[in-house]
Amino acid sequence: MANEINPPRGMRDFLPAEKGNREQVLAIIRGVYESFGFQEVETPALENLDRLTSGQGGDNEKLAFRVMKRGADLESALISGGDADALSDLGLRFDLTVPLTRFYASNRSALTNVFKAIQIGPVWRAERPQKGRYRQFVQCDIDIIGDESNLAEIELINASLATLDALGLGESIVRVNHRSLLVSLLSGFGVTEDKLSEAMIIIDKLDKIEVAGVLAELEDKLGGQVASNAKTWFATLDASKIPDVLTNIFSAVDGNRLRFDPTLVRGMGYYTGAIFEIEHPSSGLSIGGGGRYDGMVGKWLGTDVPAVGISLGFERVVELVPETKLSKGVVLVLEDYSTETIKAATSYQRELIGQGMNVRLEIKPKRLNLLLETMKANGFESFAIVSGDGLKPALKPID
Amino acid sequence: MANEINPPRGMRDFLPAEKGNREQVLAIIRGVYESFGFQEVETPALENLDRLTSGQGGDNEKLAFRVMKRGADLESALISGGDADALSDLGLRFDLTVPLTRFYASNRSALTNVFKAIQIGPVWRAERPQKGRYRQFVQCDIDIIGDESNLAEIELINASLATLDALGLGESIVRVNHRSLLVSLLSGFGVTEDKLSEAMIIIDKLDKIEVAGVLAELEDKLGGQVASNAKTWFATLDASKIPDVLTNIFSAVDGNRLRFDPTLVRGMGYYTGAIFEIEHPSSGLSIGGGGRYDGMVGKWLGTDVPAVGISLGFERVVELVPETKLSKGVVLVLEDYSTETIKAATSYQRELIGQGMNVRLEIKPKRLNLLLETMKANGFESFAIVSGDGLKPALKPID
Repeated sequence: MANEINPPRGMRDFLPAEKGNREQVLAIIRGVYESFGFQEVETPALENLDRLTSGQGGDNEKLAFRVMKRGADLESALISGGDADALSDLGLRFDLTVPLTRFYASNRSALTNVFKAIQIGPVWRAERPQKGRYRQFVQCDIDIIGDESNLAEIELINASLATLDALGLGESIVRVNHRSLLVSLLSGFGVTEDKLSEAMIIIDKLDKIEVAGVLAELEDKLGGQVASNAKTWFATLDASKIPDVLTNIFSAVDGNRLRFDPTLVRGMGYYTGAIFEIEHPSSGLSIGGGGRYDGMVGKWLGTDVPAVGISLGFERVVELVPETKLSKGVVLVLEDYSTETIKAATSYQRELIGQGMNVRLEIKPKRLNLLLETMKANGFESFAIVSGDGLKPALKPID
Repeated sequence: MANEINPPRGMRDFLPAEKGNREQVLAIIRGVYESFGFQEVETPALENLDRLTSGQGGDNEKLAFRVMKRGADLESALISGGDADALSDLGLRFDLTVPLTRFYASNRSALTNVFKAIQIGPVWRAERPQKGRYRQFVQCDIDIIGDESNLAEIELINASLATLDALGLGESIVRVNHRSLLVSLLSGFGVTEDKLSEAMIIIDKLDKIEVAGVLAELEDKLGGQVASNAKTWFATLDASKIPDVLTNIFSAVDGNRLRFDPTLVRGMGYYTGAIFEIEHPSSGLSIGGGGRYDGMVGKWLGTDVPAVGISLGFERVVELVPETKLSKGVVLVLEDYSTETIKAATSYQRELIGQGMNVRLEIKPKRLNLLLETMKANGFESFAIVSGDGLKPALKPID
């Protein structure tokens, strides 16, 4: 029976060492983001389903976990033989961007003119579980809403790189492209406007299927002329000349940390300007990404508001950060379970906590050495045996 | 249209000031819990529905948000005209205790013999939204699994009170009772074993319907004899003599912070020993509670394991804590949007961040005073206007 007791498929428990490490990494990320003047906000895990599936979320919309209606609403949907859409009214967020734009629309009057947001929290996607891909995972987003200038992109890149530096991931670099470059490139290939998204999605597969695969799929879906033009382009790719539309950004950020990548696409349909992907030499996968999405807030608000964001993929980042030690702790072992000993131990515990220590109480077991061994593995470094005599014995290191 | 843009019913957005305050309060709670040697763990927000609705969660089970099956599983459930149970396989956790016992059963071999857990996170209940009651809210739990002695209760009470002290809520006290006292009391009234739960649920309403209401309901549901015995008991209640079963706890904890309350019941059916409720003079509602639940882990594991926990109701606690100021920040105002000015500003920003400040960049608007006013309201206390001349002007306070 015991081996059947697991968290739901694709979801994880975090034990003390891993949880402690995750919280430390999150605290560093939060601190650096705040040092750049960003302010944290929070939205609920659930959003109304019609917002989550309004076409803003791209392919991720299909991966939203749907929450069933309740009570009379559910009854009537069941009686009328409703389909899945009719049976659910809420969904778990699949990213932090769709909720943020909803948040901005809900709370605009209470926010600063240029709104610089931190969001840190879990998102849920019903993907097929596989190594390194989970159905609940944490994202760390910063977004700037209300700034149409490239200062927004520059700040997001600087804050993201400073965060990675603080985590010891100073080798991270940001690949940059611009949607307008992709649009004019593809139009030049002969791709009609209604096929632009399809063409971008094909080029986005470059990492997986390489140039030959991309060309084959372009030919198959968009014709030989497009494929032939693309072939010439791939053969003569020049990433050394920074296009005018990106010079603002490249001249303001440390050049060693930016790389122009004319093949960078990013899957989401909502990007309208600069797009980013962050990579680190120790990870084969992107560890973050983002871009400008000027049209998305307007979808809820009625008037367009410029917006740009970068999301760090926390699960991939935390894998790259060496696990830190648990905080140092003390074990007070109670010689016996008498009222006097308990009083002595809790009083000593209070004193040591006052000195900044983490102090755990344990009743003396038959095998004291085994207990101390386990405690040491859990980050406790010293101990004392307390009895009811009221003395406060000196702490000894656990060997 | 704008007024329709809201988070789902009963759920909340947190703006920067409130979110900042919540995170600070959480950091204090986490820190004090850790100082008592507890270690934080995390479980997924979702659990398999059959675990959430196994009878361990009491009335809260009915409030679980259910997540729909997906793909082929959903199709076949729909085709066979499935009811709500057949259509869903996961649920959002409604507390942190049921998931913790599942976690313990899943990970027992990797945990210390006596497991002292911190859990901090949101839970979801589909309650009718009302003032102070939300459909997503945060709980802060500490639990000790594997210790049958009252040292567990003593540690949980001490850690909870120390946490409240650290939050400036030193007037909090813990009301204590023991399930065995309730059982023998009610048996003495003539309540048969199969009616014990029902009788406890009636007595649990004392706060809301007072003695007369309780007696009326006891008479209605359990007969005149039970009600008459209860009436005598209420009239002669004596909370001054601590029962033997609670003397261990009362002799080890500061007596001013504990109060024996023979009428305390706690709704959940799973308690087997001491039960607690925490109150503070500024709140009419309980701000925390818990108790011993020795049978619950055994439900998953097959063998009983002693367990006891206390949960702080974070939403009620945070309302009592005075809002702290946002951290002090600096606004660097860019005189213009030239490459030189951007470089000067980002370089100055980096320098000030290095000195421990939070530094926000803003492009100079037409109405500088309005910007500075807004920034001040957001916790930024000083500013400087940066131009492309490469100078680093001194910071001035925002008046």
